[in-house]
Amino acid sequence: MFTLYYAVNTCSLATHIALEDAGADYELRRIDFARTEQQSPDYLKVNPKARVPALVTPSGILTETPAMLAFIAQSFLEAALAPLDDAFAFAEMQSFNSYLCSTLHVAHAHRVRGYRWAYEASSFADMQRKVPESVSACYDLIETSMLRGPWVMGKAYTVADPYLFTLAQWLEDDGVNPKRFPRVIEHRSRMAERPSVKRAIAVESAI
Amino acid sequence: MFTLYYAVNTCSLATHIALEDAGADYELRRIDFARTEQQSPDYLKVNPKARVPALVTPSGILTETPAMLAFIAQSFLEAALAPLDDAFAFAEMQSFNSYLCSTLHVAHAHRVRGYRWAYEASSFADMQRKVPESVSACYDLIETSMLRGPWVMGKAYTVADPYLFTLAQWLEDDGVNPKRFPRVIEHRSRMAERPSVKRAIAVESAI
Repeated sequence: MFTLYYAVNTCSLATHIALEDAGADYELRRIDFARTEQQSPDYLKVNPKARVPALVTPSGILTETPAMLAFIAQSFLEAALAPLDDAFAFAEMQSFNSYLCSTLHVAHAHRVRGYRWAYEASSFADMQRKVPESVSACYDLIETSMLRGPWVMGKAYTVADPYLFTLAQWLEDDGVNPKRFPRVIEHRSRMAERPSVKRAIAVESAI
Repeated sequence: MFTLYYAVNTCSLATHIALEDAGADYELRRIDFARTEQQSPDYLKVNPKARVPALVTPSGILTETPAMLAFIAQSFLEAALAPLDDAFAFAEMQSFNSYLCSTLHVAHAHRVRGYRWAYEASSFADMQRKVPESVSACYDLIETSMLRGPWVMGKAYTVADPYLFTLAQWLEDDGVNPKRFPRVIEHRSRMAERPSVKRAIAVESAI
């Protein structure tokens, strides 16, 4: 049994979908950012980083999406969610996920979380102005060099797919023109048709 | 045979040390940031992200430090650089590396690479003022919750160790008080005594 601590409209959706893809036995615990529940003493015992997601497993607690996604793939071999028998192909998938967490997600976060990296309201506004350009630059690379199609890594669906799908939810809100990235949008649409994705979104939307 | 594209004073040192730890057969190619060589047409063919490091392997090219570190560990089993027979322990190591790339390195990068996320000189200056606080917050977590000792993951040395060591090179320049983080500093000193680390630093310093 796993427990996923998540919040709506955050990157925790990627792990949520991966748990569905894996057929895992899990329960959800919603963290309410509007009530800053991620900073409550109880949640800080789960994740001292005061962020989501956090995944409670029988072996202990994990944080950081790329690590959790690889762990789910390694824990549910029959679901075939990563190229685990090919170290180079696995590294390519990990490279994609690492780019999403360290570059694309970070660029996006400057729209509403500028306080992490600056003090002044004028800096936050400046950061917000740059987001369409910096996030589009990430999608340029993904569109032209990284997304192989039909899935991120090519013919085989992997845990990189729910991660890209999750971050691509924010594309329009970040001021990115979706018409510039037809392959990313087509991937997002194809993902949205998957039963695992529909289930995860329905549950998160219902609460 | 591997080829590591690196630049001095960057996170490529982590992969350089890991290749030394692994006993890998590799050669180095230095990218000169002062001449913006990372944006040259030749280098963009290697890594369209215009960043270092990039690792040319017999199977293809890899980027993103966490992916490269795990790949080196998986490619040189006899070097025992990661807990590969325990998916949860491996995920914990990956979680640590993911935190370094997506949070600590990103906080640090706001000192001199603010142009990635804003337009105005006043924003860059504001970001620089925040770096001592944001980077120290990362080291608070590492010191109190993440670094197990004597190595990052506990008794066994892993590829998380050269990664922390590499980022900890910048601690004083980021305005962080090293006296607040005695365990991080002790880890850095212990790493500096390792022959693999001495070799990597000597080669990078000599050019």
